[in-house]
Amino acid sequence: MILLLGYTGYIGQAYADELVRRRLPWRPLSRRDLDYTSFDVLHRFLKETKPSLVINAAGYTGKPNVDACETRQADTLAGNVILPVTIAHACAAFDIPFAHISSGCIYAGAKIRTADGVRVERDLMQPAVRALWETDPSVVVGFTETDEPNFSFRHPPCSFYSGTKALAEEAVSGVGRGYIWRLRIPFDRFDNPRNYLSKLLRYPRIYDNVNSLSHRGDLARASLDLWEKHAPFGIYNITNPGFVTSRQVVESIRDILKPSRAFEFWADDAEFYRLGARTPRSNCVLDVAKLLAAGVVMRPVGEALRDALEHWSAS
Amino acid sequence: MILLLGYTGYIGQAYADELVRRRLPWRPLSRRDLDYTSFDVLHRFLKETKPSLVINAAGYTGKPNVDACETRQADTLAGNVILPVTIAHACAAFDIPFAHISSGCIYAGAKIRTADGVRVERDLMQPAVRALWETDPSVVVGFTETDEPNFSFRHPPCSFYSGTKALAEEAVSGVGRGYIWRLRIPFDRFDNPRNYLSKLLRYPRIYDNVNSLSHRGDLARASLDLWEKHAPFGIYNITNPGFVTSRQVVESIRDILKPSRAFEFWADDAEFYRLGARTPRSNCVLDVAKLLAAGVVMRPVGEALRDALEHWSAS
Repeated sequence: MILLLGYTGYIGQAYADELVRRRLPWRPLSRRDLDYTSFDVLHRFLKETKPSLVINAAGYTGKPNVDACETRQADTLAGNVILPVTIAHACAAFDIPFAHISSGCIYAGAKIRTADGVRVERDLMQPAVRALWETDPSVVVGFTETDEPNFSFRHPPCSFYSGTKALAEEAVSGVGRGYIWRLRIPFDRFDNPRNYLSKLLRYPRIYDNVNSLSHRGDLARASLDLWEKHAPFGIYNITNPGFVTSRQVVESIRDILKPSRAFEFWADDAEFYRLGARTPRSNCVLDVAKLLAAGVVMRPVGEALRDALEHWSAS
Repeated sequence: MILLLGYTGYIGQAYADELVRRRLPWRPLSRRDLDYTSFDVLHRFLKETKPSLVINAAGYTGKPNVDACETRQADTLAGNVILPVTIAHACAAFDIPFAHISSGCIYAGAKIRTADGVRVERDLMQPAVRALWETDPSVVVGFTETDEPNFSFRHPPCSFYSGTKALAEEAVSGVGRGYIWRLRIPFDRFDNPRNYLSKLLRYPRIYDNVNSLSHRGDLARASLDLWEKHAPFGIYNITNPGFVTSRQVVESIRDILKPSRAFEFWADDAEFYRLGARTPRSNCVLDVAKLLAAGVVMRPVGEALRDALEHWSAS
């Protein structure tokens, strides 16, 4: 039996749907059913139920956005660090495998391949860097699972949210037998405040940058593929291969959804951070070679985006 | 056998000395002997050795002072939150009692009793508040173990250090069978960079405020008294009863040690925070009625200070 924590959240729902689709024996667990933030309570529960896998899709993301985590530091640390650590410890005590859903937002930028070698660029929108990847997108090399996070408390500046996500990976890695499944900017065809496409459709002004994205259904499918294929425990980047700019996604929205509204962009980072955001945002490209090498199929990001938009279901 | 983690630290040494003095069976454990920050390693070790009590005197205080924690947030969280949580979980898995050494620096100020009732004052140096306790010291009521910390991530502003200490108490409370032993500003007769008296002797300029203090030997003795008396698990403030101002301590230093140097004070809080410190400092008074009610004897702070100064051992 697979135990799913945080199944009511935006990401948790996708795992619940995929577990149902696969007809795997599973059980959702909400904090109302059982206070799984308590080590003692969870330890007792795991001892009795001995699940085959515990998936933690719970976390604290801040509402309406990540800026809220700057002022809710205790809640952010409790939800994103202490909770995953508690789950990992309780699982390890009985040698139960677990999966912690993490985020690629612990990186900034990407690696850029030049004649002189490969270097990290934290800001891909700097004109000189932008010229490189606009000329030849293949110079962009995503961060792999062995690259140390560079948008974290150890490598500031970072948002408080990203700091806690990076710290949780550090604290959970090496505990028992665990997966760390990292997504980036979720989207799919279902309109939702957490869906990147819905956000772009509703932002008064859009912030342009370069990112990897994760189709929500693809994420859940790829994650459970790793589990069913007995892929080695450890960290996996789970995004759709490739990267996109916000402008490119807006272009696809215009082409396919043909919305009546016009889209405006912030002039530049300076304007966005002065007027539109409080804490720095992660924008980054992840590499998924490890996921693909494990035999998991992922559609390119352009294909997944087109599919979501062509079957768009407004709420 | 009592297991002591962090025995090489300033506070850990006092526990080690007291364990030796009492001829209790105990064992020091350093990170060099065993990586007790790893849940798996510690869990296995506890399963094999089954100590009667695990005392965690390890923590991250920042060097040269608490300001360093503002820039070393990952280390501060790892040492002050993730480590205590890991120890508590590993102990709880085998129902082993544990003690986490915490700090009273999660409070600011004190409660002040007036004709209208008791109110919290975060800053006892405000002229209007100061006039009250200078006229009648008995109006000052220390924070008890049931008062919620008011110098924490939940009640900012706070230092990052204090935020992590308050969060650790939250995360560790309710796990297994545990003590939380809180000290405030340690001192004793032995000159040491961590000793409050040494600090006052060496600060170029002194910051005047009101605080409870903990004589280091008294702290270790009182803690082990709680354990040996089978006092109920939970939080205990362990300071010498009463409170002092920095000026009063400097007066005692002048009277007893008769140092050749003159002592200068920062003009006020504004000057101190502009020139002498980066992050806000906790200054507070704790109540020790719970400790005394458990049958543990503690000398008044004035007596403990006089004793330390009369037997002062310069290094």
